[in-house]
Amino acid sequence: MWHRSVKETVMLYDLTVVQFSKMLNNLNAVLDKGAAYAEAKRVDVGVLLGSRLAPDQFNLIRQVQIACDTAKLGVARLTGKQESAPVHPDVETSLAELKARIHSVIEYLAQFSPSDFEDAAERSISQPRWEGKYLTGYEFAIQHVIPNLYFHITTAYAILRHNGVDIGKKDYLGPMPYKS
Amino acid sequence: MWHRSVKETVMLYDLTVVQFSKMLNNLNAVLDKGAAYAEAKRVDVGVLLGSRLAPDQFNLIRQVQIACDTAKLGVARLTGKQESAPVHPDVETSLAELKARIHSVIEYLAQFSPSDFEDAAERSISQPRWEGKYLTGYEFAIQHVIPNLYFHITTAYAILRHNGVDIGKKDYLGPMPYKS
Repeated sequence: MWHRSVKETVMLYDLTVVQFSKMLNNLNAVLDKGAAYAEAKRVDVGVLLGSRLAPDQFNLIRQVQIACDTAKLGVARLTGKQESAPVHPDVETSLAELKARIHSVIEYLAQFSPSDFEDAAERSISQPRWEGKYLTGYEFAIQHVIPNLYFHITTAYAILRHNGVDIGKKDYLGPMPYKS
Repeated sequence: MWHRSVKETVMLYDLTVVQFSKMLNNLNAVLDKGAAYAEAKRVDVGVLLGSRLAPDQFNLIRQVQIACDTAKLGVARLTGKQESAPVHPDVETSLAELKARIHSVIEYLAQFSPSDFEDAAERSISQPRWEGKYLTGYEFAIQHVIPNLYFHITTAYAILRHNGVDIGKKDYLGPMPYKS
């Protein structure tokens, strides 16, 4: 068995812990813009939270919940620390509760360091609905967790955008560490 | 200056060339489902291609064009081979033309190998609208190209989903290399 390199370990950490935390912060700010928009329109923010793009697609609350779980459980599974993940029973109904969930996940992610990812790439990772089948952590990260995280954050953004909230690509991407 | 590891080079290649090709294939299949839906509904597929989620957001054609450019130019810039990228002047109006563009990018990506990414992480990368500022390739990949690629593919998916096309998360993610 070959050994994973330190730098690959750092990269898995950066792709998930660091970048997912950034995206959750961006999502939090986008939700705040949604709340400000609802207030300006004199509409209950709950209307936005219950909105969806198709009748059989999840609404905004559920998109945020799944984005949170994708980040939380993705990192927990990659590092073999599932038992350390905070439990969130999907009972949020208000914006404040949703934001608290986002912050809880960001705080959870902050406990990890690159060394937690030492065996991540080769770990066998499964999920309940996969009926015993598994992916390697490397495949799981690249083909499953990362695409899923961006899917749900983009869909949350799209629901707000569709309802008229004035947000743009910069709100989605967040600040860039530009150099000159 | 420290040296990037071979495995990190492979990972940058897998995250972009390999995974972006997969996502573009998924996008191609989702567009085919949109075309079949339009035909079943006796609606011109052009109605779907011109659809958008907000009046000031790009329509489906433009989302696909930008997804293609994000993959093409992202890899070209990371590998320092911008002059090798095929030129696409954004003139597609039909589904056949859009699909040809997707295939052109997939063919372009197929020419790359992990060794092309040897200096990618440390390369200074800029884009015309950044006015001379730059990111390192490592930052560019993780914080810019990857989130953007998924943003535009998810938005294309969302436009079709919003219009009633029967697609689900599996169409977005594509096949997984499950083991048992």
